[in-house]
Amino acid sequence: MSGVVVQNIQRAAADVIDGLAACGVATVHEAQGRTGLLASYMRPIYPGARIAGSAVTISAPPGDNWMVHVAIEQLQAGDILVLAPTSPCEDGYFGDLLATSAQARGCRGLVIDAGVRDVRDLTEMNFPVWSKCISAQGTIKATLGSVNVPVVCARALVHPGDVIVADDDGVCVVPRADAEGVLKAAQAREANEAEKRAKLAAGVLGLDMYKMRERLAAEGLKYV
Amino acid sequence: MSGVVVQNIQRAAADVIDGLAACGVATVHEAQGRTGLLASYMRPIYPGARIAGSAVTISAPPGDNWMVHVAIEQLQAGDILVLAPTSPCEDGYFGDLLATSAQARGCRGLVIDAGVRDVRDLTEMNFPVWSKCISAQGTIKATLGSVNVPVVCARALVHPGDVIVADDDGVCVVPRADAEGVLKAAQAREANEAEKRAKLAAGVLGLDMYKMRERLAAEGLKYV
Amino acid sequence: MSGVVVQNIQRAAADVIDGLAACGVATVHEAQGRTGLLASYMRPIYPGARIAGSAVTISAPPGDNWMVHVAIEQLQAGDILVLAPTSPCEDGYFGDLLATSAQARGCRGLVIDAGVRDVRDLTEMNFPVWSKCISAQGTIKATLGSVNVPVVCARALVHPGDVIVADDDGVCVVPRADAEGVLKAAQAREANEAEKRAKLAAGVLGLDMYKMRERLAAEGLKYV
Amino acid sequence: MSGVVVQNIQRAAADVIDGLAACGVATVHEAQGRTGLLASYMRPIYPGARIAGSAVTISAPPGDNWMVHVAIEQLQAGDILVLAPTSPCEDGYFGDLLATSAQARGCRGLVIDAGVRDVRDLTEMNFPVWSKCISAQGTIKATLGSVNVPVVCARALVHPGDVIVADDDGVCVVPRADAEGVLKAAQAREANEAEKRAKLAAGVLGLDMYKMRERLAAEGLKYV
Amino acid sequence: MSGVVVQNIQRAAADVIDGLAACGVATVHEAQGRTGLLASYMRPIYPGARIAGSAVTISAPPGDNWMVHVAIEQLQAGDILVLAPTSPCEDGYFGDLLATSAQARGCRGLVIDAGVRDVRDLTEMNFPVWSKCISAQGTIKATLGSVNVPVVCARALVHPGDVIVADDDGVCVVPRADAEGVLKAAQAREANEAEKRAKLAAGVLGLDMYKMRERLAAEGLKYV
Amino acid sequence: MSGVVVQNIQRAAADVIDGLAACGVATVHEAQGRTGLLASYMRPIYPGARIAGSAVTISAPPGDNWMVHVAIEQLQAGDILVLAPTSPCEDGYFGDLLATSAQARGCRGLVIDAGVRDVRDLTEMNFPVWSKCISAQGTIKATLGSVNVPVVCARALVHPGDVIVADDDGVCVVPRADAEGVLKAAQAREANEAEKRAKLAAGVLGLDMYKMRERLAAEGLKYV
Repeated sequence: MSGVVVQNIQRAAADVIDGLAACGVATVHEAQGRTGLLASYMRPIYPGARIAGSAVTISAPPGDNWMVHVAIEQLQAGDILVLAPTSPCEDGYFGDLLATSAQARGCRGLVIDAGVRDVRDLTEMNFPVWSKCISAQGTIKATLGSVNVPVVCARALVHPGDVIVADDDGVCVVPRADAEGVLKAAQAREANEAEKRAKLAAGVLGLDMYKMRERLAAEGLKYV
Repeated sequence: MSGVVVQNIQRAAADVIDGLAACGVATVHEAQGRTGLLASYMRPIYPGARIAGSAVTISAPPGDNWMVHVAIEQLQAGDILVLAPTSPCEDGYFGDLLATSAQARGCRGLVIDAGVRDVRDLTEMNFPVWSKCISAQGTIKATLGSVNVPVVCARALVHPGDVIVADDDGVCVVPRADAEGVLKAAQAREANEAEKRAKLAAGVLGLDMYKMRERLAAEGLKYV
Repeated sequence: MSGVVVQNIQRAAADVIDGLAACGVATVHEAQGRTGLLASYMRPIYPGARIAGSAVTISAPPGDNWMVHVAIEQLQAGDILVLAPTSPCEDGYFGDLLATSAQARGCRGLVIDAGVRDVRDLTEMNFPVWSKCISAQGTIKATLGSVNVPVVCARALVHPGDVIVADDDGVCVVPRADAEGVLKAAQAREANEAEKRAKLAAGVLGLDMYKMRERLAAEGLKYV
Repeated sequence: MSGVVVQNIQRAAADVIDGLAACGVATVHEAQGRTGLLASYMRPIYPGARIAGSAVTISAPPGDNWMVHVAIEQLQAGDILVLAPTSPCEDGYFGDLLATSAQARGCRGLVIDAGVRDVRDLTEMNFPVWSKCISAQGTIKATLGSVNVPVVCARALVHPGDVIVADDDGVCVVPRADAEGVLKAAQAREANEAEKRAKLAAGVLGLDMYKMRERLAAEGLKYV
Repeated sequence: MSGVVVQNIQRAAADVIDGLAACGVATVHEAQGRTGLLASYMRPIYPGARIAGSAVTISAPPGDNWMVHVAIEQLQAGDILVLAPTSPCEDGYFGDLLATSAQARGCRGLVIDAGVRDVRDLTEMNFPVWSKCISAQGTIKATLGSVNVPVVCARALVHPGDVIVADDDGVCVVPRADAEGVLKAAQAREANEAEKRAKLAAGVLGLDMYKMRERLAAEGLKYV
Repeated sequence: MSGVVVQNIQRAAADVIDGLAACGVATVHEAQGRTGLLASYMRPIYPGARIAGSAVTISAPPGDNWMVHVAIEQLQAGDILVLAPTSPCEDGYFGDLLATSAQARGCRGLVIDAGVRDVRDLTEMNFPVWSKCISAQGTIKATLGSVNVPVVCARALVHPGDVIVADDDGVCVVPRADAEGVLKAAQAREANEAEKRAKLAAGVLGLDMYKMRERLAAEGLKYV
């Protein structure tokens, strides 16, 4: 099963990807029916980054980052690396040298269900990473994994070419074939939200704006 | 047991509340006999906030934020929302729309033993949240909970109207009836601390300042 | 076993210590054969600090910080306090008063496999701490521990006088006797890395720079 | 706040307590509106025990079991010890000697949000314990806590004299004043369950028995 | 995405399924290239069960077990229920009544990335469950999920009809289409293991049996 | 640092080792001043085993069990294998074939800060294991580690030849040089305990037996 590099993957359209980035994780996740979130332990190494890109996936053995080098060759501008270890691992698979190489190929960031290191350098380079932990623990280059195969990363299924959206709220995966539709739904939500926000800021209650009072009463809510 | 909204809760005096905020969590917790801390996994979504307010409590089912809308109507200026799910949950019950609504009513922040989302927006809005995690996972509005009933939130018992103090050190709850006394004790500690700090900064040792040497020797401490 | 304070410990040379700080945790850890890292749950209370210093170790009972006062007297300029509780504990052993005292003696920071508090003050004081958690929970002064004995802190063995290196990637311990050799190896790595970084930034692939293609093929990697 | 022993606590009637034990945790918890469960990390040290009793509560400092000795004097036949540390702790507060003493006074078991030891002996003695972990780590007797004050134990609020029900499913607390009513509701559920069980065993589907099909269709469930 | 019940799923041949059960989790997992294991936190509620069956999958909201009733209708003799909540949850979705119903339809067990209750009854019924935790916390029946859609359960991707193998070592999923091939590979391993076991029991070292000494020496292993 | 096998290690006397086994973990740990316990997450795969033996230590890379084969050759009758991975790992390093080989050389059990598999077989073989988790995840044989070097295992420092004591309460390490003295202290405690147990069983309170009342009163304990 491992030892495979899939070279030609399909990607979503660039404007769809960038549109999803602008919407952000929470909106995109809602827009696709509340699916696709990675585990909440996946946190950014610095606040403020908001990106989207096409997933170049890596299935790697625990403590072995050999396949990251292989994956970097497969990167196109606008891609995001997504690494899932084959068993739980906290090691620091990725640091500033790999980031330099990935960034040189136009990579927008890394999503890794394991550790990352050199986080000060990565922050200065403006190379965002969402990871399970920060760990300087080095890795080896001894065993094959695969690149651009489906992976389960932080509890979510990611296919190569799926759109990854990541910001301060976490990481969400959008299946490539759904990306355009999800973008439309997300943008519709956003348009909708501006109006709601204005009303709420003016003091209108959600209870009234969403007409909840009747249903609450029907369910038996009692005010005492 | 659930399905109840208590509308009239008593609150501590505004100046007492603000005095407690100025003292901060560590001092307040010490001043009330080292009680009242919420679990240390409750972390602020951004550094630097230091607030106090009266607790408007929410007991909510897992993954259901309906009661947050109900609770917002109960908010008065200076209040803090305190949400405890009825079983462990990481979902993102609260985002920028709810924060807009809460802030419009003068709410000072949220303490939630679950997830929060839209954290970049909340940061820009200067609406502080202390939460168990950050998660974009959306919630439903299907089942009743209660508002302004006693809850156990992050291992601490909170009654509606209790004073919540929160800063970078975490969250502490002060029973309403004790608030004035705790403030006095906290302010006494603070006055005391300035002098100690000056001595310590000048190089005086705690061993001497607190006269510990004799008791350490009596306990058998050996210098080798 | 407890109740001992070792007063005369040996330290590494100041320039070696400062050299290790400049290299940082990830490089130092690699340079000593990928050993010495503390657990990845040890996180800095604020980003950006990078320090090294000689370990003054504290073995303390759970929830009892009496020995911190004892340890501070043993500090010399350039030292780092390293506290390991004798059983797992999250309490806040250390706050701004102790930091004031430690800083007055030239202490560069604290590494603690437990909690810390007053983190806003510590940040303003520029006193860095790497800890398991942040907790305002106060401690008592009732039971002896020891100072400057070997401790296991966050899964790593630390002898008094060992060099502690800490930055945004975590914490690493270098045995005192190895410090000079590790520094040389670390500096050699650094020199080496600048050249690699330039090549990678120019688009050279790690696959080629490290001559990995042949070995990957030999292992059976398939491009499809 | 600490340093208090409340000597006269009220207890529920013995037959109510025993009735609740017979119903078991899951049924009792349902019968009182799905409240009162302690955290699921509270596990029995051996399978098969099912008990109920009146809570004699202990609030103890981390790593200090002095108050257990104090609490044992307060035990009456049929009581259950409930220990909550004042900050998170895994130490082994309780072993075979304390169990011998508690059992001599008719104590039915221990619920402890910390560690327990001598579990082989406790098993042989048929003294059941529900704990957060098993740990041989010894404790000291240096600092006061309190006995028979309200405690938050494993996320649940327990008042002295409340009824504790514990079995292989975990631990549930029933407020003393509610105990009789909860027992009736629990017994009603049980009567009801026998009939349901027979139908289900005979192949009747819950979909039909509970008449769910119409509501599922109304919600939009699609069979494909 | 949710609200769908897929009624006709394909299953592997019964003798293949039973053959996989006989091999057990560790062997099957090795035989399919060390893939397919669910997270190690999935533990059996009692020791000794070893089963295999076809997955009938359930995607359920947190704290809502309505879809379990729907899924039971889809069960055929020899199936195993596999439940994945749409966000992390510890609630007790499943107890003795549901087990009675499932068992009446020939269901062999449950794999659930959440909680289970009535474990004493389930043990007596000989209905095995592998779960994340044991919790009596009740669930509601308010929101649709789906049955027989692909799910990520405890970090593994499970399609309906895949073969689930479960024993004291945990749970493994075998894609339906691979089941026959994996069985052959697993049986080959087993045949092989008997011979190895005999040699090792007779004192032959793995170093010699697997001819490791030369490669170890080549890697530089030093005996001192 | 790695790639070393130390062949001649010193062991404690057999009768001392067996004496420590008879005392058990809790008593031994107390007898050596409450030190030496491994983390409480180290649990036995089956209840009832109580062993002691000389540590043959293994430092192994994550997910690589090559060194276990090397270590088995170093085993003498009465030894216990102690494996610490060089970074956190849950993989199943050890199963029934390795246990067969170890048992053939007189090995009494395994202590592993990682995973173990084939636990049903190991139970039938009466080969006890204390581990961090149970996982069928297979490992590779690609990278050197070391045998019989000092390791930090589950937070405790273990030197080769130290005495490991393990039972249902967990695992404790006794430094080889201290073993005889610790045994005497442990046996003294045991003799002492029998008398105490008899008194407590007869209803004497610890408060009286240990003469605690006066000190409690002095500390300010109030009976209300």
